[in-house]
Amino acid sequence: MLVSVTQPSIAADDDSTSARKAAISRDDLLAAALRLIGPHRSVSSLSLREVAREAGIAPNSFYRQFRDIDELAVALIDLAGQSLRKIVGAARRRAATSHSIVRDSVTAFMEQVRADDKLLHVLLREGTVGSHAFQQAVDRELTFFEEELRIDLVRLSAAEGATLRDPALVAKAITRLVFAMGATAMDSPPEKDAELIRQLSQMVRMILAGAQAMARE
Amino acid sequence: MLVSVTQPSIAADDDSTSARKAAISRDDLLAAALRLIGPHRSVSSLSLREVAREAGIAPNSFYRQFRDIDELAVALIDLAGQSLRKIVGAARRRAATSHSIVRDSVTAFMEQVRADDKLLHVLLREGTVGSHAFQQAVDRELTFFEEELRIDLVRLSAAEGATLRDPALVAKAITRLVFAMGATAMDSPPEKDAELIRQLSQMVRMILAGAQAMARE
Repeated sequence: MLVSVTQPSIAADDDSTSARKAAISRDDLLAAALRLIGPHRSVSSLSLREVAREAGIAPNSFYRQFRDIDELAVALIDLAGQSLRKIVGAARRRAATSHSIVRDSVTAFMEQVRADDKLLHVLLREGTVGSHAFQQAVDRELTFFEEELRIDLVRLSAAEGATLRDPALVAKAITRLVFAMGATAMDSPPEKDAELIRQLSQMVRMILAGAQAMARE
Repeated sequence: MLVSVTQPSIAADDDSTSARKAAISRDDLLAAALRLIGPHRSVSSLSLREVAREAGIAPNSFYRQFRDIDELAVALIDLAGQSLRKIVGAARRRAATSHSIVRDSVTAFMEQVRADDKLLHVLLREGTVGSHAFQQAVDRELTFFEEELRIDLVRLSAAEGATLRDPALVAKAITRLVFAMGATAMDSPPEKDAELIRQLSQMVRMILAGAQAMARE
């Protein structure tokens, strides 16, 4: 017999947006911020007061979880980066051949872009706007992504008996290109995804083929 | 003897920001909008009323030049794209060898990013935010850029006796990568420019080497 693991919380509050809660977690505040943002509402335009209202707490209670609204924005970006690395990394490890690794990784990335993942959209859309701390957080997530990709590229090339010129730069070129193309894809109709995946996969293969050719020189 | 060509205009108005002018051009309104925007003030946040005030005209006079604030934003992007294509295209035509073509074009691009070119900053920073019309204008400028680059790449490869696999895709990969790296460069200290130019030039050479290797297969 199945037992439900969902228990009503002691501080449950049905009218969560208007009534004020006694206790609130970081996750509650992050979720409230995510509900407010969208294609035409940027993270940098959020006010602390507004996020507190959406979460159903007094503005002063916000400070128990975050120093200011910038710190919340940085936490959102860290979450988005972690989730994306997990998904694309898993696709890379599942794929068997180097040909399908490129395509499967690009496809996993694009599926996540399409999955109405607001966190990922923030990462893609707002990397060049917003506060300095926010931009640094976006850059940090891209750097984590690049470092994991670099390790995989070196391992995969060695397994094929190939060498890459400057694998760190290869990983950076691939990451920056995929993120740039992903940012424009958010606003394209989904029927263009197949063509975009084809183009992106081909671009990634060009970079890899070039890095191999330059290593042989 | 030098004769000044600057004549006081009939409608001259020293206190241009507070008094209201009788006639105003599209360029005056574009210049007013440019004065208002900056790293932490996006085009999409400008209001018609605010631009009119900065230009020293009544809000209703705005409509003689632009249908709405979105049309002004699109005009700004078109200007930015034209100016950048002129500068980078000229660098490409000046360069003598294919090795220096890549580096000289990337250097011209980065110099323009550093030249406090607010128009270019708008193009780089705000391509993924703002209205649909605005995003389409950014995409159109990138496409113009790609098409001119494609023509040059085909011509230069032929001159070297080489062939590129899918030159349109090569031009797109290079353009999207250079713009993405340029967008993050705006917020980096200028002393990182030399390293960024080295990295970007190497990335572009990888893409070209890969497209040549794939054409030989």
